[in-house]
Amino acid sequence: MSMINETENRGSWLNDEQIEFVRDRLPILYIDAIPVRVDELGNVTQIGLLLRGMPDGSISRAMVSGRVLYGERIRGALLRHLEKDLGATALPQLAPSPTPFTIVEYFPDPSVSGFHDPRQHAVSLAFVVVVKGDCRPSQNALDLAWLSPQESQSKKVLDEMTGGQAKLLKLALAHMGVIE
Amino acid sequence: MSMINETENRGSWLNDEQIEFVRDRLPILYIDAIPVRVDELGNVTQIGLLLRGMPDGSISRAMVSGRVLYGERIRGALLRHLEKDLGATALPQLAPSPTPFTIVEYFPDPSVSGFHDPRQHAVSLAFVVVVKGDCRPSQNALDLAWLSPQESQSKKVLDEMTGGQAKLLKLALAHMGVIE
Amino acid sequence: MSMINETENRGSWLNDEQIEFVRDRLPILYIDAIPVRVDELGNVTQIGLLLRGMPDGSISRAMVSGRVLYGERIRGALLRHLEKDLGATALPQLAPSPTPFTIVEYFPDPSVSGFHDPRQHAVSLAFVVVVKGDCRPSQNALDLAWLSPQESQSKKVLDEMTGGQAKLLKLALAHMGVIE
Amino acid sequence: MSMINETENRGSWLNDEQIEFVRDRLPILYIDAIPVRVDELGNVTQIGLLLRGMPDGSISRAMVSGRVLYGERIRGALLRHLEKDLGATALPQLAPSPTPFTIVEYFPDPSVSGFHDPRQHAVSLAFVVVVKGDCRPSQNALDLAWLSPQESQSKKVLDEMTGGQAKLLKLALAHMGVIE
Repeated sequence: MSMINETENRGSWLNDEQIEFVRDRLPILYIDAIPVRVDELGNVTQIGLLLRGMPDGSISRAMVSGRVLYGERIRGALLRHLEKDLGATALPQLAPSPTPFTIVEYFPDPSVSGFHDPRQHAVSLAFVVVVKGDCRPSQNALDLAWLSPQESQSKKVLDEMTGGQAKLLKLALAHMGVIE
Repeated sequence: MSMINETENRGSWLNDEQIEFVRDRLPILYIDAIPVRVDELGNVTQIGLLLRGMPDGSISRAMVSGRVLYGERIRGALLRHLEKDLGATALPQLAPSPTPFTIVEYFPDPSVSGFHDPRQHAVSLAFVVVVKGDCRPSQNALDLAWLSPQESQSKKVLDEMTGGQAKLLKLALAHMGVIE
Repeated sequence: MSMINETENRGSWLNDEQIEFVRDRLPILYIDAIPVRVDELGNVTQIGLLLRGMPDGSISRAMVSGRVLYGERIRGALLRHLEKDLGATALPQLAPSPTPFTIVEYFPDPSVSGFHDPRQHAVSLAFVVVVKGDCRPSQNALDLAWLSPQESQSKKVLDEMTGGQAKLLKLALAHMGVIE
Repeated sequence: MSMINETENRGSWLNDEQIEFVRDRLPILYIDAIPVRVDELGNVTQIGLLLRGMPDGSISRAMVSGRVLYGERIRGALLRHLEKDLGATALPQLAPSPTPFTIVEYFPDPSVSGFHDPRQHAVSLAFVVVVKGDCRPSQNALDLAWLSPQESQSKKVLDEMTGGQAKLLKLALAHMGVIE
């Protein structure tokens, strides 16, 4: 009771105890974004892959990812996380359709869906987003690499990815018609 | 504290106090399903519209709708809500793609997105689902009407819908290529 | 025989007799493009509608539209027709996914699908395309108007459209989530 | 001239000379269909792969594929080719949306798009289609194999496919969220 009545006002911020409470009882809404560069015809030329610490403690090539807050539009969450991970000058070009190219279901048990998040059951709306500006990895990311579609699906790169991120990358490549 | 430490086990069930707590702090994940009947070529012949009490107290033609539970797959939530609202013999034919045709963002403030839920910020994955069996409205619904695509977009029917359900119906009709 | 053996080399150009021949025997592949302007979040702010003579002799608000040539990629046809109808400085931003948001089937008989082209059976891949540059209608178009999503679906505008273009506009608006 | 004026009536049938003429001058509209079986939740359990002679003379695992005729709806072409290749009792369940999951561009030059048809430039609308009935390969196919999603993407199976069919299979698997 006390938690509800005495502490936070209505709002999106959650303290550690509260986030633990909701993570044990509700699927948490996320967005995933795969940043890409395209040529004049819209053909993808480069895929942006962050390198960062993952929820399970591993270091992995990974997509831009994050939680949707209370009261926040999906587009707002996308822009916020893209700017947080790629910097304020990344110039992400959000598409006019609100529909994600796929839905990713992360579970604490990695065998359920192939997508793993030891902290929570998260359901993520995944988008490919063209970026036009200068990108620099934020403090949360160790590195940002731009790979050609071909390089991105090399065994070496895919093997560096954990928690289902390699599968998500393949889904994005297929969505763009460039899977090999 | 007490709420977290003393009471529930990890799980999807939430008491009234807990549901109020999470509704004030997180977007809640929902599914919406528009049941349809199709002919041999896949052309939609009928749209199923429930009649029921809405969160805002109005009575409206409405889609099948409901929350995704902790640990539940999206497909499981879809099947569960379709069977709950249309009965156990509805035989819904879930599509092999996991991607919804649109995302619906419901807000307590009806002006934000045109989709309104006074109780909460809900984000819903919306699917068109072919049903093959016998449907009967559950105890939650007052009626189930099967309308032709043309009838469903008559001014009379659309005016009977509240909370953005008319807009969701139009999005579904457009997805099927039968908007007029 | 003579037509085949004596005249053209392999190629995309067709004389009047040849175009009449193929139009009577094959569905002709087209693209349709709905140019839009978006804000920083990807929300559509304006829809570009041409005013031009239609195949049936009427004058109508219409989309960018045209044939895909032998040997031409879909993306190439899209860019070519966008630049032809909107000018070389329109800067269309083709999306990284090759999938159209809908397929439009035009028939000489307007009752078949609601999409009408008296000259031919045409099958068109329809795309929404963000444009970033200056647009000016080409010699084929009488005018180019930029309307808000709301204005574009007013009865006045929709009534000015022939051959199914109003339906195609609604499909595009629904794809972007802004149908009313 | 004679070809045009003296011979065929308007219609979809083309003699050898005429088909050669159009194949040299126009992209030809096709459909591709990937037959699948699903469980009660819509999860794909099996992928149907034909074994047959390909346009380039090879024998390959392949999708259902064929031309769209003059005057024919896309849905009609899909049903016709599914029944032709899988038999009259296959009971294909065409989806209510007319939108293909991807567009496949076949070229005589295999380096253009990775999809190869030595006879022609063909543009194919590709659909995943659930089949519910008994399937038997037609006289055109040597065999029909039902493979699990996992089996279908084994190196052995993918290596048996020519002309880009392995890539098309991967695009379909990704569309269903089951690529590995």
